[in-house]
Amino acid sequence: MRTSNSPVRVAIVGASGYSGEELVRLLLSHPHAELVAVTSRQSAGQTIAQVFPKFAGHPRSRTLKFTEPDVAALAAQADVVFLALPHGVSAEFAVPLVAAGRVVIDLSADFRLRSAAVYQEFYAHAHPAPDLLARAVYGLPEVYRDQIRGSSLIASPGCYPTSILLPTLPLLRAGLIKPSGIIADSMSGVSGAGRKADLDYLFCECNESVRAYGVPKHRHLSEIEQELGIAAGAPVTVQFTPHLIPVNRGIHTTLYLAPAKHFATAAEMADLDQRIAACYRAAYADEPFVRVLEGKALPDTKNVVGTNTLELAWRLDPRTGRLLVMSAEDNIVKGASGQAVQSLNIVCGFPETAGLV
Amino acid sequence: MRTSNSPVRVAIVGASGYSGEELVRLLLSHPHAELVAVTSRQSAGQTIAQVFPKFAGHPRSRTLKFTEPDVAALAAQADVVFLALPHGVSAEFAVPLVAAGRVVIDLSADFRLRSAAVYQEFYAHAHPAPDLLARAVYGLPEVYRDQIRGSSLIASPGCYPTSILLPTLPLLRAGLIKPSGIIADSMSGVSGAGRKADLDYLFCECNESVRAYGVPKHRHLSEIEQELGIAAGAPVTVQFTPHLIPVNRGIHTTLYLAPAKHFATAAEMADLDQRIAACYRAAYADEPFVRVLEGKALPDTKNVVGTNTLELAWRLDPRTGRLLVMSAEDNIVKGASGQAVQSLNIVCGFPETAGLV
Amino acid sequence: MRTSNSPVRVAIVGASGYSGEELVRLLLSHPHAELVAVTSRQSAGQTIAQVFPKFAGHPRSRTLKFTEPDVAALAAQADVVFLALPHGVSAEFAVPLVAAGRVVIDLSADFRLRSAAVYQEFYAHAHPAPDLLARAVYGLPEVYRDQIRGSSLIASPGCYPTSILLPTLPLLRAGLIKPSGIIADSMSGVSGAGRKADLDYLFCECNESVRAYGVPKHRHLSEIEQELGIAAGAPVTVQFTPHLIPVNRGIHTTLYLAPAKHFATAAEMADLDQRIAACYRAAYADEPFVRVLEGKALPDTKNVVGTNTLELAWRLDPRTGRLLVMSAEDNIVKGASGQAVQSLNIVCGFPETAGLV
Amino acid sequence: MRTSNSPVRVAIVGASGYSGEELVRLLLSHPHAELVAVTSRQSAGQTIAQVFPKFAGHPRSRTLKFTEPDVAALAAQADVVFLALPHGVSAEFAVPLVAAGRVVIDLSADFRLRSAAVYQEFYAHAHPAPDLLARAVYGLPEVYRDQIRGSSLIASPGCYPTSILLPTLPLLRAGLIKPSGIIADSMSGVSGAGRKADLDYLFCECNESVRAYGVPKHRHLSEIEQELGIAAGAPVTVQFTPHLIPVNRGIHTTLYLAPAKHFATAAEMADLDQRIAACYRAAYADEPFVRVLEGKALPDTKNVVGTNTLELAWRLDPRTGRLLVMSAEDNIVKGASGQAVQSLNIVCGFPETAGLV
Repeated sequence: MRTSNSPVRVAIVGASGYSGEELVRLLLSHPHAELVAVTSRQSAGQTIAQVFPKFAGHPRSRTLKFTEPDVAALAAQADVVFLALPHGVSAEFAVPLVAAGRVVIDLSADFRLRSAAVYQEFYAHAHPAPDLLARAVYGLPEVYRDQIRGSSLIASPGCYPTSILLPTLPLLRAGLIKPSGIIADSMSGVSGAGRKADLDYLFCECNESVRAYGVPKHRHLSEIEQELGIAAGAPVTVQFTPHLIPVNRGIHTTLYLAPAKHFATAAEMADLDQRIAACYRAAYADEPFVRVLEGKALPDTKNVVGTNTLELAWRLDPRTGRLLVMSAEDNIVKGASGQAVQSLNIVCGFPETAGLV
Repeated sequence: MRTSNSPVRVAIVGASGYSGEELVRLLLSHPHAELVAVTSRQSAGQTIAQVFPKFAGHPRSRTLKFTEPDVAALAAQADVVFLALPHGVSAEFAVPLVAAGRVVIDLSADFRLRSAAVYQEFYAHAHPAPDLLARAVYGLPEVYRDQIRGSSLIASPGCYPTSILLPTLPLLRAGLIKPSGIIADSMSGVSGAGRKADLDYLFCECNESVRAYGVPKHRHLSEIEQELGIAAGAPVTVQFTPHLIPVNRGIHTTLYLAPAKHFATAAEMADLDQRIAACYRAAYADEPFVRVLEGKALPDTKNVVGTNTLELAWRLDPRTGRLLVMSAEDNIVKGASGQAVQSLNIVCGFPETAGLV
Repeated sequence: MRTSNSPVRVAIVGASGYSGEELVRLLLSHPHAELVAVTSRQSAGQTIAQVFPKFAGHPRSRTLKFTEPDVAALAAQADVVFLALPHGVSAEFAVPLVAAGRVVIDLSADFRLRSAAVYQEFYAHAHPAPDLLARAVYGLPEVYRDQIRGSSLIASPGCYPTSILLPTLPLLRAGLIKPSGIIADSMSGVSGAGRKADLDYLFCECNESVRAYGVPKHRHLSEIEQELGIAAGAPVTVQFTPHLIPVNRGIHTTLYLAPAKHFATAAEMADLDQRIAACYRAAYADEPFVRVLEGKALPDTKNVVGTNTLELAWRLDPRTGRLLVMSAEDNIVKGASGQAVQSLNIVCGFPETAGLV
Repeated sequence: MRTSNSPVRVAIVGASGYSGEELVRLLLSHPHAELVAVTSRQSAGQTIAQVFPKFAGHPRSRTLKFTEPDVAALAAQADVVFLALPHGVSAEFAVPLVAAGRVVIDLSADFRLRSAAVYQEFYAHAHPAPDLLARAVYGLPEVYRDQIRGSSLIASPGCYPTSILLPTLPLLRAGLIKPSGIIADSMSGVSGAGRKADLDYLFCECNESVRAYGVPKHRHLSEIEQELGIAAGAPVTVQFTPHLIPVNRGIHTTLYLAPAKHFATAAEMADLDQRIAACYRAAYADEPFVRVLEGKALPDTKNVVGTNTLELAWRLDPRTGRLLVMSAEDNIVKGASGQAVQSLNIVCGFPETAGLV
């Protein structure tokens, strides 16, 4: 899609939210991409540097202005278009841009599900472009790298699903855990709620506060269960509880899993522990953005914030027979914009870590 | 205004903001007051317990419902009405309620200034009820206790002014500092911005952030300079810089003051130090809500949050010849609702600490 | 134990930690208690007001000095002694004070377990006073009110156990949930780690961080399982995962429970929902410190911090068949010092809410 | 000092504190530097990845182990040695390493002052290597770039001084402000206190707290006054008040300055405003790490955290005749480790922004 020496031209639609802002940060510094357009209704006419003074050090930020979103202009200017829009709105851009031969990397939920019916169940409106669902690839590079490579419509995963799927999928595929009874208990920083004026997310309403929300049927369950179901070869139902905690960024997930084979003795436990370690090593030893902690360390969001890395660790509990897996990621990077840039790198044939370390 | 054994009937207009909520908390527990009405356009029809579950332990919170604000109903129900409204709106309630013989304790800026012209200069609109200004008392009990006692219109001071006036007035009245060159550098928690849906006060915009705002002519300067001018007997101009910091509550002010008499030797410095200590003791030794720290301790907002106490400490700097005074208070209690209840206690003849410790 | 009109004389051993400090706050304001002694090796010789300036408003704080802990002096001065000491140390004071006829309310883990063997398993040292275990009462007033009334050794529950037991015990006793498969996923503020100089709890190590710890066998499991086992009439094994989040105070627990009876239809679900509501109402409608949220609200630590209230809510999940119960409490109040004062009120025959609202 | 194509070999002494950790981060990613040694008594024997899991993505972090500090080994391995040690300790390494021909970049205060007597006055012990003071360069690149270029002992400035000097020096040199009466009121994040186990810096002691400290004679005054005095050509005395606020990183400084020439009319004020703008443009338009905000924006630490940029803005106050200048920086980057790497780039002839954007 490009000549070997020129950078790929990229655009961001909806660049004034938290994910959009992070895309701006990553793409301004990307060694092989040139940011050619950023759109935002509220910021149109202003330069990036005016809207985000912290990026003023990049020369491009002082000349590139936000524009009103316009499909024809985007198609003319950009090779790859990132959509950082609310669900239900992305299709309006994705349909014509894909038709025009552009690569679309969508950060919304609109193209993550294979089934328009499931979409309607969880998002409470008809899918705006069901014909495109079959063309979309779920943009989790550690699972769908090959499919991403040739795709023109990449549905970048949700923040919670990333934190749940990466720890769970290898175990499920290896038959080490049962597909039933999975519980995912997650905590997210407030940036996950987006940059919107809402009393619930005022500083004083979140600081010194912890609360669950969206129980028991959060929208992200739809993609979590879809991907776990594919790995298990049968439908999977998950218990998922998100909580809001007073940090800007970061998701921590604790997973409660049932080993496929009961362990009773210390020897059986040690054996299972080794098989889990081997499973994770096989899956992630060569992955640049998954860090499996062995030894005593447990995941901590402060060790991944600002990076595209997800870290995970596990513990077998001989008292309950369960397997606990904990993960930590930056919800805006590996959980959104960083993972989208990872897909950009794959689709364009760049080193996968380009612009991400 | 009441028989000796029945509680005073109090109402709160605008009870869903942070100051209003704190008034609800204080008045639900007040030993001599009965909360008879709370108004809020957005919460009308709901009980206090529904809007603020944390107060559900008080039986009254489960029966008393928010209503639309209505002057006639307020005049009929309440002896004392607290107005927790934005500036410019209070007069609409204060004028008829005062005319009806009720006591009004206004937490807005509307009746703090003696001059309608100064009000217009700082608040950018004509004063809505200039005739009432002469009747209003500036509700700083440590200064105007006697006038509050017989008043029917008490203009409760602003949060920043309280943190600046209490440390400065005794020194100015005693002639220990010059009235010129006063600098007040303040930091406030985010609750000071009110409970309103505004991107600037989202958790992620305030957390891990510090910034000045409202420089160089913040509205609170008008009342600060009015009260310092009265104490000095001549106009006073103040440099005041507020900063927003990521705490829910608390104001810390550092004051840079010029001693009236130059001190050069260690003996002169020790003498001045003693005179300052004596001045503060004379002013505040018997005040229940001002704590003068002697010794090594410095004010810390965490020692006053949730209380009606302002704490202060001072240091003479022999290198610069200046006097530094630092103060800390809870901006919503001593800086707003607690101080207003202190005025309630005075005007009703209750012990001044009733419901406040 | 006291004449009807004189206040009970209370002492606090280990008053410089977070629980000790909160006991000081509560007991200085308690209408029927007189704080006669506070001990702390590091603060001995200083008044309460010097160590905790925020309590300086209480006259007693300016005269009462911290002393070195001394059993004979405590026995001579106090009717009731609170022990806010690390586990393993309390027995040294509890044994002689109980022998001397004093009431001991112990906030450590030392007397919470009925079995010295279980204590040794979880705390890794022999129990220091196994003979006293049979005399101790587990100080959860909502469960053991009658036993507390006549006791001279009250083992006040741990913070996590309180947040788990109050939501679970009524359901278990009513046979509404299975005793197996219980999962408790908790988040605690940093005060739970105590006031000790440890790199792990520095501001910069906790702020903008979330992490699990103590998995899979946290010490609090011992008392959680003991109490659930008593309610179930058979041993219970629990999965418990604590997480550290950047708030000063507050514990939020999400419980994953299995209804005793499978529900399949909407009608069955509605019926079970009604039975749970009825169960909680029967247990807690008259309890001053448990708030059962019905309707849409979910527990939020900011609604309970600074109070002795635990709030809880539940949701049935028709997709998984599970029952989720969420609770929120202040770990230092209902989870420690407030609950201990509640026991004081019971043992002394005061109104149970005295000094706690 | 190196051949053109090989990277410079760098070592960090004291790499386990916050500044040391940030040096590790910056140098692991530096395009022209190779990290060859990191020392720390407490972490000796562990790899960087073990001590700081978040750096595990860098291959070098998984092989390079912390060692005990050893001058001979450092001299043998490294071309440039960063010292991230407490004041008073650096000289022990700086003296032999400079003698051995190595370049030393010291982040402590030990070589910032030209006068051993002033050092003793502010640091309360004799200077450990007074003979070296004359060889040291104050490592503020925007001022001493040429001297840094040829230096072998660079004393990297303190965090507060950087936030005060960069806004003030150009104005002072241009004669736009008086050298007398300067007040600097600063707020710092808690990382400024270092990674040390101290009760004062526990999460619960800093969160929801603001307090002044070190008044009125903080050690950083010595270097602030030295550098302002050099610029003014005469001794300068400064009023400096640091405050601790609950953020991990960031310093905000508000400076109160007296224009050299009184301005009375709007035209005079506009003229002075233009001259200040021109002065800052002349000083900083070509500086990669100083951002002068014109227009309405004010500095905000959240816009500079994680970067080597200091941002500043100014306001003239016609009411008081003063000039206010506000600055924001990351205390650990521009205020410490980033600025030290900037000096590395200068001394080695790298692009000054290498590894810093």
